Amino acid sequence: MSAEIICVGTELLLGEILNGNARFLAAELARLGIPHYFQTVVGDNESRIHQVLELAVSRSQILLFTGGLGPTPDDLTTAAIASYFNTDLVERPEVIQDITTKFAQRQRQMTDNNRKQALLPMGAEILPNITGTAPGMIWSPQSPLQILTFPGVPSEMHQMWQDTAVPFLRAQGWGESIIYSQVLRFWGIGESTLANKVDRFFDLQNPTVAPYASGGEVRLRLSARAKSEADALAMINPVAEQIKAIAGEDCFGQDEDTLAAVVGQLLHEREQTVAVAESCTGGGLGAMFTEIPGSSSYFRGGVIAYANEVKAAVLNVMPETLNQFGAVSEPTAKQMALGVQQALQTDWGISITGIAGPEGGTPTKPVGLVYVGIAGPDQSVAVFEYQFGGRDRATIRHRSACHALDRLRRRLLH
Amino acid sequence: MSAEIICVGTELLLGEILNGNARFLAAELARLGIPHYFQTVVGDNESRIHQVLELAVSRSQILLFTGGLGPTPDDLTTAAIASYFNTDLVERPEVIQDITTKFAQRQRQMTDNNRKQALLPMGAEILPNITGTAPGMIWSPQSPLQILTFPGVPSEMHQMWQDTAVPFLRAQGWGESIIYSQVLRFWGIGESTLANKVDRFFDLQNPTVAPYASGGEVRLRLSARAKSEADALAMINPVAEQIKAIAGEDCFGQDEDTLAAVVGQLLHEREQTVAVAESCTGGGLGAMFTEIPGSSSYFRGGVIAYANEVKAAVLNVMPETLNQFGAVSEPTAKQMALGVQQALQTDWGISITGIAGPEGGTPTKPVGLVYVGIAGPDQSVAVFEYQFGGRDRATIRHRSACHALDRLRRRLLH
Repeated sequence: MSAEIICVGTELLLGEILNGNARFLAAELARLGIPHYFQTVVGDNESRIHQVLELAVSRSQILLFTGGLGPTPDDLTTAAIASYFNTDLVERPEVIQDITTKFAQRQRQMTDNNRKQALLPMGAEILPNITGTAPGMIWSPQSPLQILTFPGVPSEMHQMWQDTAVPFLRAQGWGESIIYSQVLRFWGIGESTLANKVDRFFDLQNPTVAPYASGGEVRLRLSARAKSEADALAMINPVAEQIKAIAGEDCFGQDEDTLAAVVGQLLHEREQTVAVAESCTGGGLGAMFTEIPGSSSYFRGGVIAYANEVKAAVLNVMPETLNQFGAVSEPTAKQMALGVQQALQTDWGISITGIAGPEGGTPTKPVGLVYVGIAGPDQSVAVFEYQFGGRDRATIRHRSACHALDRLRRRLLH
Repeated sequence: MSAEIICVGTELLLGEILNGNARFLAAELARLGIPHYFQTVVGDNESRIHQVLELAVSRSQILLFTGGLGPTPDDLTTAAIASYFNTDLVERPEVIQDITTKFAQRQRQMTDNNRKQALLPMGAEILPNITGTAPGMIWSPQSPLQILTFPGVPSEMHQMWQDTAVPFLRAQGWGESIIYSQVLRFWGIGESTLANKVDRFFDLQNPTVAPYASGGEVRLRLSARAKSEADALAMINPVAEQIKAIAGEDCFGQDEDTLAAVVGQLLHEREQTVAVAESCTGGGLGAMFTEIPGSSSYFRGGVIAYANEVKAAVLNVMPETLNQFGAVSEPTAKQMALGVQQALQTDWGISITGIAGPEGGTPTKPVGLVYVGIAGPDQSVAVFEYQFGGRDRATIRHRSACHALDRLRRRLLH
């Protein structure tokens, strides 16, 4: 028994919009424990919808359609499904009534186009749409197949899913066994190195453990199938604890934890404050800190020292340091971190100076060379050198800020 | 002749990430005029990848795979494609060499896992990956079928597509009849207001004109089908000019133009400099300015004045102003803009102070209240008040920074 998501819409085939509906339904299916192996996107075209149906019917028992329920001629999902099963469409008076009422409320005139939205295959149940004019349907044209249709408008689809589809699926026994996932998040270790350390877990069947990497971060997803979230967690936790013990400080958090949130929590616990001195990241590190609600309890501010004169005038970097070693250097990073710690009277000062490119590199200081300085409450400063060569400006800036957060995190752990 | 997009990844089936790769490739196929009727998402599972291949091979001639090229055991796209066509995998020494070099540059040890990424089907060409360790392939296992594979990491995939796949497809004759789109971008005007002003263009057939809105910005997409980009532009330009004349300053740019890039260009032309004083955006405005390569010619830096003491000590906001009017007020915004202009010796000073929430609102100063100050070379300061009530923290911060850029843009136009 498995479900399949079929999204109908030429705008998806033209790449005009992201398929947020597929993501939403996929996450919901996982939550209900309904297996789901395929997603398909197809245009507003009857014969191609038939092709997709033929395959989907052969391998899945629950088909979730989104899109193509609107009033215009290119909206033909319902008609295509009905014709595939040689079933007539019937106008539903209760839908006509509902659409008429909604148009009246909005002081607009219902058009003939909208009558089309009241046509559903004979035998199909209406899947009510509270806010919009396009209802969906729940239809079992043949046993054990169940077809559910939703409009493409995300807010309408979400509400219809929660209000009607979920209770319907639960009544059929779904949701008794669920798939629950926990994601462990790592910084400062590569995917293959981490995989080598924890590969003994990759053969587990329940929970499963799978790695993936994105934007310099590595994640391990632990997924368990169980009767409840609590049962799933009881299966996941021992594995998660073993992995955390192996990974040590490289594991910075789980699920929605971000580096900035974890660092913020550590600063909050210690009742310490931080300030940033940013050159190549231009404010990006401060923006990460302040993404976190409540960050004002530990983040006091910073100096964006993009020009050398600002490094000297506001951060007290010595002109001779800039002259002798350059703005992108270990001594400059050091003085920037101390300078902002001093100017803003904080426990910690973090600096970033580097060459984000694409221009500005030299043979000795190539694009991607970045220094991160961490000045601590004991007046010590540690400076770390990074080489992000071969990466683009946005990536170099993002990774620089993440590494700076990670360095502070590791300092705060001791 | 048509193409099909196949995205491999259990994280997509679990709804953990949005399928941005499908969107990117779909838009690119449209640009090249390559018909494209189906997209499929499938998990990291050999037999299900075989199922998808069987159908795709029967109906499409160009298959674009993303995902599943990594070093870990669940990355099996290449192996699954090879086994479907009963072809052996062969280790490519040039890929081993490339991976070794990259690990050395990053001062990390290559692992045995990574050797897997050098395995490609006999007869397949390497599709080079400049930044990452996972190359793709271009392979024609049977005529006229062409299979192209890309890693799931978006930045790597985009570069590989542009550098190698597009030239390859053009060499095969694609891109001769193309769909070319230009996007006009608007800030400071709502979608329905703009739509009302330009609705006469919505019935055009070639080019077509369609509006969409996202994140406070409104866009109009003008799409023409033609033999070349030049022909398409000749059809688009007269319509674009009419729309620009109607919209006036509300149209800030087109295509990849961002507010920060447009403002940067204006500053660069005037040989003027700017500095930022940020409270609730915490560095986000500086980060936007410095996203632009070459921004150091006009962006000197800024002060992230998150704590009131920083506003007073570094930006010279008068303590009595903070006491009497509060940090989120017109007088504070004014003094912050003047303070940073003075401290960093720039032509322009921009300030942002507001309540990003979710906590911190009061009846008189609700969450979403934001002031933007613009201090100009003539020592005048203009302050603008915004009410972003009902929106989340990230949205309030983002819109505040965009409005600040837009206010400076409009000042610079006169």
